[in-house]
Amino acid sequence: MLVVMQAQATEEQVRAVCQKIEALGYRAHSMPGAQRTAIGITGNQGEVESGTLEEMPGVQEVIRVSKPYKLVSRDTKPDNTVIKFPDSPVTIGGPGLAIVAGPCAIENRDQAFKVAECVARAGAQFFRGGAYKPRTSPYSFQGMGEEGLKIMAEVRDRFGLLVVTEAVDYESLELVDQYADVIQIGARNMQNFSLLKRAGRARKPVLLKRGISATLEEFLMAAEYIMSEGNYNVVLCERGVRTFADHTRNTLDLSVVPAVQRLSHLPIIVDPSHGTGKRNKVTPLSRAAVAVGADGLIVEVHHDPDRALSDGMQSLYPDQFDALMAQVRQIAAVLGRSIPASNRVRAEATTSAD
Amino acid sequence: MLVVMQAQATEEQVRAVCQKIEALGYRAHSMPGAQRTAIGITGNQGEVESGTLEEMPGVQEVIRVSKPYKLVSRDTKPDNTVIKFPDSPVTIGGPGLAIVAGPCAIENRDQAFKVAECVARAGAQFFRGGAYKPRTSPYSFQGMGEEGLKIMAEVRDRFGLLVVTEAVDYESLELVDQYADVIQIGARNMQNFSLLKRAGRARKPVLLKRGISATLEEFLMAAEYIMSEGNYNVVLCERGVRTFADHTRNTLDLSVVPAVQRLSHLPIIVDPSHGTGKRNKVTPLSRAAVAVGADGLIVEVHHDPDRALSDGMQSLYPDQFDALMAQVRQIAAVLGRSIPASNRVRAEATTSAD
Amino acid sequence: MLVVMQAQATEEQVRAVCQKIEALGYRAHSMPGAQRTAIGITGNQGEVESGTLEEMPGVQEVIRVSKPYKLVSRDTKPDNTVIKFPDSPVTIGGPGLAIVAGPCAIENRDQAFKVAECVARAGAQFFRGGAYKPRTSPYSFQGMGEEGLKIMAEVRDRFGLLVVTEAVDYESLELVDQYADVIQIGARNMQNFSLLKRAGRARKPVLLKRGISATLEEFLMAAEYIMSEGNYNVVLCERGVRTFADHTRNTLDLSVVPAVQRLSHLPIIVDPSHGTGKRNKVTPLSRAAVAVGADGLIVEVHHDPDRALSDGMQSLYPDQFDALMAQVRQIAAVLGRSIPASNRVRAEATTSAD
Amino acid sequence: MLVVMQAQATEEQVRAVCQKIEALGYRAHSMPGAQRTAIGITGNQGEVESGTLEEMPGVQEVIRVSKPYKLVSRDTKPDNTVIKFPDSPVTIGGPGLAIVAGPCAIENRDQAFKVAECVARAGAQFFRGGAYKPRTSPYSFQGMGEEGLKIMAEVRDRFGLLVVTEAVDYESLELVDQYADVIQIGARNMQNFSLLKRAGRARKPVLLKRGISATLEEFLMAAEYIMSEGNYNVVLCERGVRTFADHTRNTLDLSVVPAVQRLSHLPIIVDPSHGTGKRNKVTPLSRAAVAVGADGLIVEVHHDPDRALSDGMQSLYPDQFDALMAQVRQIAAVLGRSIPASNRVRAEATTSAD
Repeated sequence: MLVVMQAQATEEQVRAVCQKIEALGYRAHSMPGAQRTAIGITGNQGEVESGTLEEMPGVQEVIRVSKPYKLVSRDTKPDNTVIKFPDSPVTIGGPGLAIVAGPCAIENRDQAFKVAECVARAGAQFFRGGAYKPRTSPYSFQGMGEEGLKIMAEVRDRFGLLVVTEAVDYESLELVDQYADVIQIGARNMQNFSLLKRAGRARKPVLLKRGISATLEEFLMAAEYIMSEGNYNVVLCERGVRTFADHTRNTLDLSVVPAVQRLSHLPIIVDPSHGTGKRNKVTPLSRAAVAVGADGLIVEVHHDPDRALSDGMQSLYPDQFDALMAQVRQIAAVLGRSIPASNRVRAEATTSAD
Repeated sequence: MLVVMQAQATEEQVRAVCQKIEALGYRAHSMPGAQRTAIGITGNQGEVESGTLEEMPGVQEVIRVSKPYKLVSRDTKPDNTVIKFPDSPVTIGGPGLAIVAGPCAIENRDQAFKVAECVARAGAQFFRGGAYKPRTSPYSFQGMGEEGLKIMAEVRDRFGLLVVTEAVDYESLELVDQYADVIQIGARNMQNFSLLKRAGRARKPVLLKRGISATLEEFLMAAEYIMSEGNYNVVLCERGVRTFADHTRNTLDLSVVPAVQRLSHLPIIVDPSHGTGKRNKVTPLSRAAVAVGADGLIVEVHHDPDRALSDGMQSLYPDQFDALMAQVRQIAAVLGRSIPASNRVRAEATTSAD
Repeated sequence: MLVVMQAQATEEQVRAVCQKIEALGYRAHSMPGAQRTAIGITGNQGEVESGTLEEMPGVQEVIRVSKPYKLVSRDTKPDNTVIKFPDSPVTIGGPGLAIVAGPCAIENRDQAFKVAECVARAGAQFFRGGAYKPRTSPYSFQGMGEEGLKIMAEVRDRFGLLVVTEAVDYESLELVDQYADVIQIGARNMQNFSLLKRAGRARKPVLLKRGISATLEEFLMAAEYIMSEGNYNVVLCERGVRTFADHTRNTLDLSVVPAVQRLSHLPIIVDPSHGTGKRNKVTPLSRAAVAVGADGLIVEVHHDPDRALSDGMQSLYPDQFDALMAQVRQIAAVLGRSIPASNRVRAEATTSAD
Repeated sequence: MLVVMQAQATEEQVRAVCQKIEALGYRAHSMPGAQRTAIGITGNQGEVESGTLEEMPGVQEVIRVSKPYKLVSRDTKPDNTVIKFPDSPVTIGGPGLAIVAGPCAIENRDQAFKVAECVARAGAQFFRGGAYKPRTSPYSFQGMGEEGLKIMAEVRDRFGLLVVTEAVDYESLELVDQYADVIQIGARNMQNFSLLKRAGRARKPVLLKRGISATLEEFLMAAEYIMSEGNYNVVLCERGVRTFADHTRNTLDLSVVPAVQRLSHLPIIVDPSHGTGKRNKVTPLSRAAVAVGADGLIVEVHHDPDRALSDGMQSLYPDQFDALMAQVRQIAAVLGRSIPASNRVRAEATTSAD
């Protein structure tokens, strides 16, 4: 159920409608747009009696939502969601592309700094690296845990990169929420609804990866779980789906990008590293992802992939990432987009201009 | 890495090898078999230096395991795992078939008792029912929680049925471990490795459902996660995989039953309700599952499916379940198997025979 | 469009309606049933003007068909199609199961006779063997062609087995139609519509294999292509579909058997050899196929599989086929079905009883 | 088996090796490259005795081919295949992109001319249109047949567009070979090996569409069938594969483009119309296809899609195609490629420059 307010409705009127909704025992989600505010109602089982709301001052109409998703939907919020970060010019979902790069796993301080330096220099604004690794085998390297998070926090301080890293349970989510800038929920946990709800109560934006065989509707409903708890800063991420095809590890489904953009206001980025699982496919598919209209990329880079503790096969060498960035910049320009510099780089540019 | 003991090795020798392994910083998993004991080693990253172990008294050989799974493997334990329950003649994995039946979700005490009475009378030994429901939408009925668990505990007392129910996070797992007889891990959580590890520290057997697009190796590795924490009582469950086919909700992959039985000693049962998603397919596929050699079935039954709060479309009517049991009994007999009676029924039979 | 005649309609009335339909420029397909005759209309593009037909004597109603399939549908012909063979007691689609067995490819006369003797003795009524082999590589053995067909005709004469073999184009179809008893259309040609139409003009029944990623609707529409040309003797065959699963070559979709039986009157058999691609899975899946309700099996058997020119990996040894038949007979009995003897065996039984 | 000639081998030496191969009963396929000539051997069942060849003058080495494909492989021919057309500057596989556009089916002369005018003006060099339509239902419009081919030949004369159209059997292939410039083999016939062999004996280049669930190896082997008969002018075409995803009709697998380019010298183009099945996805996926490195596009355009006899849902309006071409041109430039003008346009340009 969705309450659409009149364009000229006052903030007070909006607040009154929200209070009424909560008095009825539901949850109200106020979503201010460029034109008007919409208020999503959740927590109802079945129909909400709409009569009481429809007659309140400032209300234009009350829409019964037939699609299962509400808060993720463009019907609820026609304008694109643009995710902002405190003290940073970088956004996700605006005209600029967000480039997230780094190693699969944080292995030690030296490795993290080496890779971070490469990707920062090439123009990435976000640093990725796993501290908690969901591995198919219990006997594989499972990540450094909090130690890895601390290293990434140092990376942010040193290179001005925003930190994206995965949480796999309540405990790690709490720590990631504390140390990182974006909380990643991995493909295997896309329908771990308890974790999604917990992420919905976190303060930081959530990067939600598509499950390996998730339909578009399931993908959006997973985002809905996060939003239904009050965290509206969700970034979707296509990372390949499982098919019969065996020339890549997964089949990157780029058509999901325009499909998401049609239905939802949330930004969507693409992970060509997991999406292909092969180093030599990452650059062509990165070009394609930007050309299809994605809001960014998340790419694995390692200064010494042959010795990486995980996923070395799909990690780019630093010079390959440089070349990728050069190509991606040009294709972004064709779509009227750019890759804005991160905070530090701007600061340094300013400084050096002195 | 696997240490195979000589057939005549003493318990003391086995204990000494385990102590040595743990002194080396690894975990030892003693697996006594009919012929000999094997000791799995986990916790090693890469190669264990095997020389020290090979020369200990009672050791026959030390095998480097090339397959990623160890504890689930028939190489480790050639005999079938038979799961037993305290004070109950019922097993899973022995010659008798395990029949688990009940509603998708526990809706209230009256519904649970009505369904339990039907399935007990028809010969099921286990009662299933969801107290924690992972639903695609955050706005759908999410289950009764602990209240539902209490109702199922009453069902056990009243009808002598063992209780199987799903846990979705640490909190619910703790409660399910307390109230139920078997902890179910659902398909969506098959690679929620934190939850698997937690289930590996629970006291009760775990019923692990195959993920919707899990390969056989991923399925076995998920069981390995549970076993690597010390809980060796794992039941696998095929419940359909996602394909392009649209005449059923999922495609039931019965070939995975002989495939699992070849590689692993763990029992495997089949869920034709989720596997097809259509009431009229449940009975033919149940017959097929028993014919292919599964160790049991898990079937949704509801006394009033048309009013069920979830998955009513795939729930059998009580008389359909009676007919299913009659057919399944006959096919089991062709394979030299039977459906043993549960405790209560035996007790009552004894009583009435007095 | 379908004209349903009254139960008491005379043959003359049926003939008159057919003539009227053809006078309108369409094709009429008279389908006599146990209760009444239905007449399918094909060849129309869009709507047929039904008024003229509805008022003819003996017509009960004229149904606009909304589903894309007409002639394959149970709406057109409620009774199961039972395919008969001249001078043979064997049928496909009646209460008896049809067992088709033989080598993947006919390699020479000696091999064909050796295998035929085994499968006839074990109780198969049909002999399969490829003379035209669709192989992934142009450099693989492509079959013996007409020479192979002649050998199979000899097999029929010698062992009383009916012959099933594949046609891959017009030329081979003409020869198969001449030498064999059943024309097989392989999975790769399931949507080779020119070949389907040609098969629809053949005199012999057609065994149509499901394409490797065909939906149920596409599968039925392929049968519709054959029937729309006048050949109503079509046997469907499930042979596994392509999925991500890698423990079998294909994923055998047994749920398609009850799904077909609900929508169509055509018989459906199962091919567990191609369906699994692994010898050790053929017997369990054969049991499951009979248990799910299939009308028969098509199984690869070779007297020396290790030297077979194609698909040796999935061919049963003769003693494995004997054991399979014994198990399948018992499961058939549970479903009230049996495996009737073929002509020759009956003849011999009669003779030896003298 | 592959005979690699020395760089300085004479034509006479190459000819001698070919004659020797054919004298041994095999077929020789001389493949001149920039550096050296390689000679593929086909027609052998199993090993060719290589000794006699290795010692001939001009031979550098004889390579036993382990991969099942030979003639399609870059090992056989390292340089990209560039397909040329008589009296036309247009190529497929060179630095220029090939743009094929037109309606799904030729409906009548007026429609064909209207669409052809649009696509020629926008810069396409090839006109596509179905005269023989493989349709799921026998009751759907099956194409105009030879009449349609004649209309397309007129389109070529009038607009200077090269004609691409599908053949579905021997008969239609013969006519298409006569009227058109490129013979299309559709996805449903990708493993219709008889048709592939027939196409291998045609004079015109073949556009081979990937089967709806074809692996990369099967796709290349289908091309191998055509080449093994002597027609080396094969263009591959990705057109989407079947997966569980339901937001598009098929899932366009763009990663197959770099995968093909790594293994094969054949050009590969992309069909975003069938690949997505939705008009609003065609433009973004066309951009992505060019960005990933495809050698061209094949796109459905209709001047009045809402009244198209087939696939109207996925056909672009003319102005949408104009916009697509504008974007695609810019992205091609980023990759150092362009969209060369076709013959007529050049001729007209020359004329008007006079």
